[in-house]
Amino acid sequence: MRYPETLDELIEYFKLLPGIGRRGAERMALAMLEWDENRLRNFGSVISALPDTVGNCPECGAIAPKGECCEICSDLRRDDSLLCVVENMTQLAAVEKGNYFRGRYLVLGGRISPLDGEDGSSLNIPLLQKKAAAPEVREVILALSSDVEGRATAAFLAELLQDLPVKITRPALGLPAGANLSYADGATIAAAFSGRTDI
Amino acid sequence: MRYPETLDELIEYFKLLPGIGRRGAERMALAMLEWDENRLRNFGSVISALPDTVGNCPECGAIAPKGECCEICSDLRRDDSLLCVVENMTQLAAVEKGNYFRGRYLVLGGRISPLDGEDGSSLNIPLLQKKAAAPEVREVILALSSDVEGRATAAFLAELLQDLPVKITRPALGLPAGANLSYADGATIAAAFSGRTDI
Repeated sequence: MRYPETLDELIEYFKLLPGIGRRGAERMALAMLEWDENRLRNFGSVISALPDTVGNCPECGAIAPKGECCEICSDLRRDDSLLCVVENMTQLAAVEKGNYFRGRYLVLGGRISPLDGEDGSSLNIPLLQKKAAAPEVREVILALSSDVEGRATAAFLAELLQDLPVKITRPALGLPAGANLSYADGATIAAAFSGRTDI
Repeated sequence: MRYPETLDELIEYFKLLPGIGRRGAERMALAMLEWDENRLRNFGSVISALPDTVGNCPECGAIAPKGECCEICSDLRRDDSLLCVVENMTQLAAVEKGNYFRGRYLVLGGRISPLDGEDGSSLNIPLLQKKAAAPEVREVILALSSDVEGRATAAFLAELLQDLPVKITRPALGLPAGANLSYADGATIAAAFSGRTDI
């Protein structure tokens, strides 16, 4: 069974998205055929307009309306002495959800991963160096993933920033809040026990 | 953390797709920001062009290039004496994957489902009646879902077609090919045992 050409193209595009396989892409494309004409045209133009409407904040690398600073960088109530380094917007959004951190961010735009051909040259490292060297910054929190590549990137950045008069930290490893000990993996339990605190 | 407006719109559109929740939609939208400009514009125009490029086959209701017959209806080698009724394109594609059925199709475009406000008036029932009454048709296979609504729709259609000189059948219920008995649900096992065949 062959689909009309545009439908096939649509399926191919959907397959490029994270977490979407052949079946999911087909299901999504077929569902869209039930949509009315207006909604399809609007959806299409939102996507076509992305390059003109969405860009990166020149201050921190976060996603922002094209040519503008992001919401966080333009917020004067944020604490300029804390700089949190994250890999991407998803991590930034996660930190914001914690509702605890009120400092500034730097979005690296990835991590160093030699196997994927990412040697760091496309990351926002020069911007990080500039921001971390600003006189008001007192602490840089490296909130990268705690997998191998995230840790390697954090180690690289820590070395890069070591001569600056800033404290370099990372978020604590431990048990997730509200979690049952019996579901935690060994590495998490080890980290939680080695970092145990008085009650 | 607020995203730029177009990004929010994009996320809202993705959330309308089957199987996509808030998190998945966000992940997909953020991933698309890594795409180059050309790919985004092409993706957008494929979607905008859907209403002009994809339509329904006037012969069977299947998806087809706008204003054209579908591939199956225009295939002269298909068996005109067999008519298989399916709910939608996904089911049609599944039957085709079986590589066994070589007859014609009729795509209902849904099923009767009073709870969802579908009383059958938007389904391709008139087209089914016309096609089933054609002199060359000898058997109508009602290949609808075997859940409550699918069975109710099949029962309704069987009654509707009962005065025509055609045999009305449905695919066999039973164990999936290659499946382990221990994973089958009770209803399937009951169907498989009641329909048991000699070896």
